[in-house]
Amino acid sequence: MQYQFYMPVKIVSGEDCIKKHADLFAPFGKRVLVVTGKSSAKNGALEDVVHAFNLNAQSYEVYDSVPPNPTVESVQEGARIARDMRADLIVAIGGGSPMDAAKAVAMLARQGVQEGDVFAHKITDDVLPMIHIPTTAGTGSEVTPYAILTNDEKQTKTSISSPALFPKIAFLDAKYTMSLPLPTTVNTAADAISHAAEGMLSVRAGALSDALARQSLRVLLGELPALLSGHFSYESRKNLLFGAMLAGTVIANTGTSPVHGMGYCLTYFHDVPHGRANGLLLPVFLEICARKDPARTAPVLEALGMPLQAFSENMAALFGRRECYDDSTLRDYAARSARNKNIKNCAVHFEEADLYEVFSRSVGGR
Amino acid sequence: MQYQFYMPVKIVSGEDCIKKHADLFAPFGKRVLVVTGKSSAKNGALEDVVHAFNLNAQSYEVYDSVPPNPTVESVQEGARIARDMRADLIVAIGGGSPMDAAKAVAMLARQGVQEGDVFAHKITDDVLPMIHIPTTAGTGSEVTPYAILTNDEKQTKTSISSPALFPKIAFLDAKYTMSLPLPTTVNTAADAISHAAEGMLSVRAGALSDALARQSLRVLLGELPALLSGHFSYESRKNLLFGAMLAGTVIANTGTSPVHGMGYCLTYFHDVPHGRANGLLLPVFLEICARKDPARTAPVLEALGMPLQAFSENMAALFGRRECYDDSTLRDYAARSARNKNIKNCAVHFEEADLYEVFSRSVGGR
Repeated sequence: MQYQFYMPVKIVSGEDCIKKHADLFAPFGKRVLVVTGKSSAKNGALEDVVHAFNLNAQSYEVYDSVPPNPTVESVQEGARIARDMRADLIVAIGGGSPMDAAKAVAMLARQGVQEGDVFAHKITDDVLPMIHIPTTAGTGSEVTPYAILTNDEKQTKTSISSPALFPKIAFLDAKYTMSLPLPTTVNTAADAISHAAEGMLSVRAGALSDALARQSLRVLLGELPALLSGHFSYESRKNLLFGAMLAGTVIANTGTSPVHGMGYCLTYFHDVPHGRANGLLLPVFLEICARKDPARTAPVLEALGMPLQAFSENMAALFGRRECYDDSTLRDYAARSARNKNIKNCAVHFEEADLYEVFSRSVGGR
Repeated sequence: MQYQFYMPVKIVSGEDCIKKHADLFAPFGKRVLVVTGKSSAKNGALEDVVHAFNLNAQSYEVYDSVPPNPTVESVQEGARIARDMRADLIVAIGGGSPMDAAKAVAMLARQGVQEGDVFAHKITDDVLPMIHIPTTAGTGSEVTPYAILTNDEKQTKTSISSPALFPKIAFLDAKYTMSLPLPTTVNTAADAISHAAEGMLSVRAGALSDALARQSLRVLLGELPALLSGHFSYESRKNLLFGAMLAGTVIANTGTSPVHGMGYCLTYFHDVPHGRANGLLLPVFLEICARKDPARTAPVLEALGMPLQAFSENMAALFGRRECYDDSTLRDYAARSARNKNIKNCAVHFEEADLYEVFSRSVGGR
């Protein structure tokens, strides 16, 4: 029971929570930059924050050019806009991409970083305050100190991380997720499930993060019937958003594992959505963990609430026909993943051969 | 699922965590005031922080005159010392009394408050940073924004509350609790159990605080065999400290209920230890909740993991021969408790007659 835990984001949850707590935007200043994706805000969230800005007599601009898997260029552009308008506050609306991009924007707006040096930059506390509004239920970015950006130099996705990147407030309103397409819903849920399971296997896992992870898995996997049927009640949407946030609090303290490191290959080179990539790899990863270190893995399998075989079948049913890559490609990805720092974060040591086994049994066979 | 959650304390846990993370004391400044009770620090905690101060070249003074149920006078004196030495950081070592007193000291050292106005004072953010080290497993003060002080004017204990009163860091090392006397162990555990149960019945309870409360009750009540036998392994001590901290994160977000309001009467007028007072009253309180609002109370009873009757019997076995007060006294306490703001915080409404019933069935009959 040796661990650290820190999650200083104020969470405000419930239907119309932004309207009901519009005053919470006010203390941060008069000029707000909204960072979002082209479609991320088309669910009522943008209207709700604009309503709040008007009540607070705050001016705002909207930067809505965050691409999926945000690039350094896009966050540099956002930061330029934030500086030009002398923004006091960044409000992020969207899934993982806009929420992560907003963190980099908030940092770059205040800290002069040469292009290309973003990943090596030592982040100071001088970061614009942020308020995050998730419109998917997966990334948990609203409660983490991480921003994952595309790293073209290393041909992967790389995390920038600092306690200064925790948002000040996260507004969780499931109504923004009601009309999410089924694939996005499934992929983001798989991402959250992966966060909780990977977090439990982290060398930094502790009693508190484990408790949150178990609760997250209970809530998220309780929605398997909805995920498999594609029919989501408001209650289901609330549960998925809640479970994803819980999983975010887990990885905020534990970091992720080889699954994420491997998944980045599939996303970087093949545009496999991030959550789907994790979800495709997670079952075999857990199987190898159970084989290599049964005692360390047992609590994770127990937290799934079903045999690993049943979990794997459920995940397979969610993802349908899966991607297949040829053997030499997967050997290359295993070698790349072995260099990812996530490897050392896992309590079960994964050799390159193990990573290759995960890849080949999950997305091999062409 | 409409709730807010905020708990910005960094939790550092594990054996020798202070020695291992002595550097965490350094960033707050060069002069430290340690606030503790006469015996609170006699468990190795003071040595460990002094070791850290020496490593960091920090100077320190020790204010060890915090009485049980701290008075306004004692915290004013602590604040005077803090000002005189120009303290940069307050380090609290002890149970609820020193930890709560330290919060008031940290506030009063920076904010000029006329004697007697402490309870009416609007607390600003200008509070000395604090690091809290619990040496009992009960209060949860290390993760709450509350300081409970004796209020002689109103003849009760009154809470001062502000997000500014959250400590920056809480160090949780169960070794400091190993030699706690049995009554203190039982009373403080009862306090924590009460926090978790009361938190679930708060009008401010939410999905996250409920999850933490359920986990807290699971861990704390899992130690009933140890509490009943009086034999505590290191593992038991760790669990009690962990469960009490979890319960603290619950009340940090939900506040407490009529149990605490009633308990303050027994403590103020009869020096019944705070946790014992809550523990004596909790079973009948829960019984009345279940009678008045079975649906709202059901999840709390379920979280106990045993029938309410068994829970009541266990608590009775823990407390042994109980205090008895005469009827007119308890009618007076019921009237006093009905004016406590905790009443409105409970999802089940308690009339004065209900409060009287709790008192008379719990500590009546003389």
